[in-house]
Amino acid sequence: MAELQVIARYTVTEGKEADVLALLGELASASRSEPGNRAFEVCRRVDEPRGVVLLERYASRAAFAAHRETPHFKDLVLGRIVPLLDSRVVEQYDVAE
Amino acid sequence: MAELQVIARYTVTEGKEADVLALLGELASASRSEPGNRAFEVCRRVDEPRGVVLLERYASRAAFAAHRETPHFKDLVLGRIVPLLDSRVVEQYDVAE
Repeated sequence: MAELQVIARYTVTEGKEADVLALLGELASASRSEPGNRAFEVCRRVDEPRGVVLLERYASRAAFAAHRETPHFKDLVLGRIVPLLDSRVVEQYDVAE
Repeated sequence: MAELQVIARYTVTEGKEADVLALLGELASASRSEPGNRAFEVCRRVDEPRGVVLLERYASRAAFAAHRETPHFKDLVLGRIVPLLDSRVVEQYDVAE
């Protein structure tokens, strides 16, 4: 089964950058504990402090689907982070052989 | 010195996907041999075969600048890959602590 790379691109609402980064720290820790998670990194755009990218790697598409059913995804992402964003785009990539 | 994450987002010209992926395989090997390179992965968008993303990690901003001065960057990227793309956007990110 090929691994899946997920790139989540956020534009944070102005003034909410510190709040979002703190929540993302919690999310990264919880996500790394999932059996199908291989990596979860939070990156900040160099030239745009409101630009945040999550680089997430899963063992399979099913593992990513399972991530989205976890309590931490529903509580932290949907419940607490998304309301602090101006935009959110999530893309899925196959890692080339 | 903080590491730098680079995300290069390509839209490949229709019909050139296989050519670009072959060239990116060469580029990945050459780039991984740079002393300041920490990772170089080629990913293909799941829902759009023309969408390619490079996930590149460098030891520092200076190491990324050095990458762009290498013969393989100038020959492969600028000389041979870019002419096969419809679009190319390169973003730089600091990895959050």
